[in-house]
Amino acid sequence: MRDVCVIGLGLIGGSLLRAAARTGRTAWGATLSEVDADAASRAGYDVTTDVEAALHRAAEQDALVVLAVPLTAVEDTLRQVAQHAAHCLLTDVVSVKAPVLDAVRRRTPYARYVGGHPMAGTAESGWLAGDATLFDDAAWVVGVEEDTDLTAWAEVARLVLDLGAHVVPLHAESHDEAVARVSHLPHLFAAILATIGAQGGPLAMSLAAGSYTDGTRVAGSNPALVKAMTEGNREALLPIVDEALGRLGAARGSLASTGGLAATINAGYEGTQTLAACRDVERAGVRVSLTAPDAREGLVALGERGGRVTGIDADTAVGEVS
Amino acid sequence: MRDVCVIGLGLIGGSLLRAAARTGRTAWGATLSEVDADAASRAGYDVTTDVEAALHRAAEQDALVVLAVPLTAVEDTLRQVAQHAAHCLLTDVVSVKAPVLDAVRRRTPYARYVGGHPMAGTAESGWLAGDATLFDDAAWVVGVEEDTDLTAWAEVARLVLDLGAHVVPLHAESHDEAVARVSHLPHLFAAILATIGAQGGPLAMSLAAGSYTDGTRVAGSNPALVKAMTEGNREALLPIVDEALGRLGAARGSLASTGGLAATINAGYEGTQTLAACRDVERAGVRVSLTAPDAREGLVALGERGGRVTGIDADTAVGEVS
Repeated sequence: MRDVCVIGLGLIGGSLLRAAARTGRTAWGATLSEVDADAASRAGYDVTTDVEAALHRAAEQDALVVLAVPLTAVEDTLRQVAQHAAHCLLTDVVSVKAPVLDAVRRRTPYARYVGGHPMAGTAESGWLAGDATLFDDAAWVVGVEEDTDLTAWAEVARLVLDLGAHVVPLHAESHDEAVARVSHLPHLFAAILATIGAQGGPLAMSLAAGSYTDGTRVAGSNPALVKAMTEGNREALLPIVDEALGRLGAARGSLASTGGLAATINAGYEGTQTLAACRDVERAGVRVSLTAPDAREGLVALGERGGRVTGIDADTAVGEVS
Repeated sequence: MRDVCVIGLGLIGGSLLRAAARTGRTAWGATLSEVDADAASRAGYDVTTDVEAALHRAAEQDALVVLAVPLTAVEDTLRQVAQHAAHCLLTDVVSVKAPVLDAVRRRTPYARYVGGHPMAGTAESGWLAGDATLFDDAAWVVGVEEDTDLTAWAEVARLVLDLGAHVVPLHAESHDEAVARVSHLPHLFAAILATIGAQGGPLAMSLAAGSYTDGTRVAGSNPALVKAMTEGNREALLPIVDEALGRLGAARGSLASTGGLAATINAGYEGTQTLAACRDVERAGVRVSLTAPDAREGLVALGERGGRVTGIDADTAVGEVS
């Protein structure tokens, strides 16, 4: 099993280092946060605040380097990768994919890069919030582009599977559009709800119950991380925000004119049934040979249909799709 | 302890009948749903599908009548109350208060009415979803108007306290404005999120994680009940929807122009801190004599400040406020 070098030890990077170490892999990490480095070292992990040293070791050991820094720190970290581990096998866990892919192509053109994004998290952040089981059964997007090296892809996918997650093969653009819908818009809505609720003062706060606490939970996330994630996905997020504005405006118009909200509420109810149906549906096994000429198309088709790769068997991705 | 007659045995009415029976009170219920009546009877509760008989018995026993029907059924049920228990002590658990107060004044002017609304619920509905512990530590608004009979108010508040909840004394208008913020807008946002997520197809559904499932949970509620509740609060809800449109539009404009979402995200984060602060704050004891000339003002002031009545001691409401 290939060694793993994790740069950035917040919630995701810290959980990844713990989970990777638990698989028996040699794994080390680096973080600029003295606090996180101290906490990780005290917990027995091999951690330094010297990012360059960690990358140098990765180059020597031909380790898989995982960028687990916020989007705003990606360019600087890639500069260090280019200097100290230019040819490494490289992945990341950043929550937007097209901007990272673009930065990698500019900054580290010789790295064997495969993008990644685990769909897991909590409203907490930092090393202490991490948990080796965070990725259990989670979807983890592993990027497939026209020029993706499928040997490198399989290495990253194997790590993801070892960490307990399922692999969703996708183009960067498909990922960014989907997370604008199911993650970034939910974060914006939560922020707006939390603002409007708080403006109701102590009375509104004293009446807040489940619909409010559920709807605002992710607004308690570290604002810097939410800002980096949503602003970094501007291109995909703008049309989704426009869709939300259109739907909210339509609800407003209907409430003001006829007094009816049936269209809004029924569509939402059907949406929840769609999610439930996607989760409950019987799934069929599917195999994609990674050495076939159309392997990339096969993987992406699987991801686009909501499928997941759950194993790698020699040169074949084994998965399921509805 | 006064007997309790519950009209409507869905999630809230069914939980209330269970919890009232557990306090040792004589309690009976009526529902037009044969299914719910059968299930409740089989569970050992005193339940009928004959609403008029249940109300007739309430008049004979001078019971406290609780309307636990959807807003759309309130007018019809009040007509039956006026016919069979015109002078009863009457409360309700409907999620808007000004429209119910208005209907009561028109339909049952001789009833001693005190409005109510428990801030508790789940996305489920119907008798089988009920639970005697649903109201434990929940806020339960008990209405105070200029003409509220404080003896009747204390009777309703005592029942609420016996059921395990805390009493929030409020004017109907204050209640309706606050729940537009912390309940009805969250329901609309959840519906819109669930619609936009589902439009992303199986791919978006396969990437949906905590921020999406939390943000859309209440969109899975019975659409008829959500429609009744939000449409019934039209007057208070419209300005809140306008506030949401303004904030979402501002976020859109900022993302499109400067690319920044800091104002939106920071305000949301501060909103979550406001809720946490309101819940963690040290509270001072407060007593409001129900026989004082300014008792109604004292109760409402307590509710408006986010306070709760936690006991009734002879003729004094005992509570806490921050």
